[in-house]
Amino acid sequence: MSRRSLHATAPAPAALRSRLDRAREAAASAGTDALLIAPGSDLRYLIGQAGGSFERLTTLVLPAEGTPALVLPKLEAPGFTDVPTDELGIELLTWVDGEDPYRLVADRLGAPRRVAVGDNTLALHVLGLRAACGTAEQTLAGPVLREVRMRKDATELAALRKAGAAIDRVHARVGDWLRPGRTEAEVGADIRAAMVEEGHSHADFIIVGSGPNGASPHHDVSDRVIEKGDVVVVDIGGPVPEGYNSDCTRTYSVGAPRDPEVTEVYAVLLAAQRAAVEAVRPGVPAGEIDATARRIIADAGYGDRFIHRTGHGIGLDVHEEPYVVAGNDLPLRPGIAFSVEPGIYHAGRWGARIEDIVAVTEDGVESFNNRPHELAVLDA
Amino acid sequence: MSRRSLHATAPAPAALRSRLDRAREAAASAGTDALLIAPGSDLRYLIGQAGGSFERLTTLVLPAEGTPALVLPKLEAPGFTDVPTDELGIELLTWVDGEDPYRLVADRLGAPRRVAVGDNTLALHVLGLRAACGTAEQTLAGPVLREVRMRKDATELAALRKAGAAIDRVHARVGDWLRPGRTEAEVGADIRAAMVEEGHSHADFIIVGSGPNGASPHHDVSDRVIEKGDVVVVDIGGPVPEGYNSDCTRTYSVGAPRDPEVTEVYAVLLAAQRAAVEAVRPGVPAGEIDATARRIIADAGYGDRFIHRTGHGIGLDVHEEPYVVAGNDLPLRPGIAFSVEPGIYHAGRWGARIEDIVAVTEDGVESFNNRPHELAVLDA
Repeated sequence: MSRRSLHATAPAPAALRSRLDRAREAAASAGTDALLIAPGSDLRYLIGQAGGSFERLTTLVLPAEGTPALVLPKLEAPGFTDVPTDELGIELLTWVDGEDPYRLVADRLGAPRRVAVGDNTLALHVLGLRAACGTAEQTLAGPVLREVRMRKDATELAALRKAGAAIDRVHARVGDWLRPGRTEAEVGADIRAAMVEEGHSHADFIIVGSGPNGASPHHDVSDRVIEKGDVVVVDIGGPVPEGYNSDCTRTYSVGAPRDPEVTEVYAVLLAAQRAAVEAVRPGVPAGEIDATARRIIADAGYGDRFIHRTGHGIGLDVHEEPYVVAGNDLPLRPGIAFSVEPGIYHAGRWGARIEDIVAVTEDGVESFNNRPHELAVLDA
Repeated sequence: MSRRSLHATAPAPAALRSRLDRAREAAASAGTDALLIAPGSDLRYLIGQAGGSFERLTTLVLPAEGTPALVLPKLEAPGFTDVPTDELGIELLTWVDGEDPYRLVADRLGAPRRVAVGDNTLALHVLGLRAACGTAEQTLAGPVLREVRMRKDATELAALRKAGAAIDRVHARVGDWLRPGRTEAEVGADIRAAMVEEGHSHADFIIVGSGPNGASPHHDVSDRVIEKGDVVVVDIGGPVPEGYNSDCTRTYSVGAPRDPEVTEVYAVLLAAQRAAVEAVRPGVPAGEIDATARRIIADAGYGDRFIHRTGHGIGLDVHEEPYVVAGNDLPLRPGIAFSVEPGIYHAGRWGARIEDIVAVTEDGVESFNNRPHELAVLDA
């Protein structure tokens, strides 16, 4: 009957308290009376526990002023016993099947003017809360929490560094598994096991895009049999026990690449990815990192084959703010971590992508992925 | 960079077409101009593919009148190539990073009066769609789709039957693993492997609640070492390749139960679960099944220890409509499938729960779980 819940290597209460305080300050600055935070990464960030209910409402009521409350189904309460609610000054409000949890939240809020719901809150609850909160304006908590979550502290950066090293060790072994005659799914199964061996809690996603499948950026694995001469995109990631994610792509060739165009195209991609990483430093707008990679690929004539943004923030979520996309004028600041992952895709033939997770430092950039970036030509 | 997508053993196009037609009719009956369906089980039910994007909008625009459209990020399009969009009469509308997908949906809708979003749509998209749709009333698609999804057809019932038999085979082996000196997590790992061996795609949840942990209905597994005399709640489930889920609970005792009260309490629980299953037939309100179990437990003096509803619908989701809860006056009809799972919990000591998945037949009930219901006393 359960939904799987996430177990945390939770930060110390003092760290959580500081996060809660910063979130409340950010809410106040945004003119928001309260944040309503659903189970998931936002909740884990703020109280050290992600929770996991679906149709039963669990929400952290975090007012700009006043005592926060965790509203949750009584039967989920044992899953939150590790949360230091007393030290965090959070009141527990449980409800049982048959009661109206939205009313419970609304009564707690009084007569707010503006209430923000977490970006991952389900429509079921968004509309239930909206109806219960009467005339209050309903907004998203994302823009408020982004300010807090985006800049990682030393502990978070250490966890991302650990995740990066773990996935690097997996990539170091990919050559053992990527052989002609094996299917993508078989290679994926080896990768899945290795990810756990190398320190991940589990694999969150595994893309083994061989030959034409490499041209689909969000392919996962298929029963396609890998052939000699195939170019293969391997994009893999998942959380370490602290909850922070790896996400790293390297492109392999099983023997010399069949398509003679690969070498030239890959050189363009390599230059684009390197230039984009080197452009990272405090003050540069996120969109400029995208522009840097895109300019090099477009100048070489492949602009229409780079069909996605250059990257995404990463932390407790694999995809989070900031997005490295055209038009994002957010200035990078120390502690912001994100992927730099341009790709060039030849529909129906093959694709290539190079991805590192990087963090902005005081005066530049640190990469958490450090395997060679060149096309990895395997014996076959 | 990817989110894991679900691969379907998709129904035939004619079956999908019929589902789409019924959903449109239900929308029209509800005075809803269009349904906006997010990735997940609703989408899988309607087009055979669940999709899997998060922050990028993917939505099926299903108007009560007119041509449906699947709005999706261009880079997700390869994941939908198996969907027979031509046969289903669905137009594909792709967008790329930097474009406004909410505007794309709104333009498609024209000037609707009422638009329903799928219950699992993320707040990020719920609010984006609301802003783009101007004055249209925004409602939930759940009450509309419930009418369609709740009554399972023969193929769906066959998949649920298959899932039930698979999890029964796992429960038949639990006695091999549940031994004094082993941790819940170790037992859980054995169960996880067996679930795949016995035909599941993966384990969705595994609860091994030994001793006091059994008193937490949504416990999963811990490092607690199982002792002789422990009562252990084992509640496990997950999808078979068709996407339909198992969910079955049995309660075990490792040797004779330490607490002498167990035998008496378990007898009450057994009677309650049996009576609730036997009460299932067309026309009976869902809430009456809850009342049947609750009455027996309350009459024996344990009413305050049965802290959750009696059950939930099941299908492509582990939890879906209808909920078997006080106040639900929905009359049961043939093809509706749900869990019957009363429990009695002694906080800090132990818990017991018995759960079967059942379906309403033309004149009664069919149980998809058929392992013995008695307390399973294991050698120890």
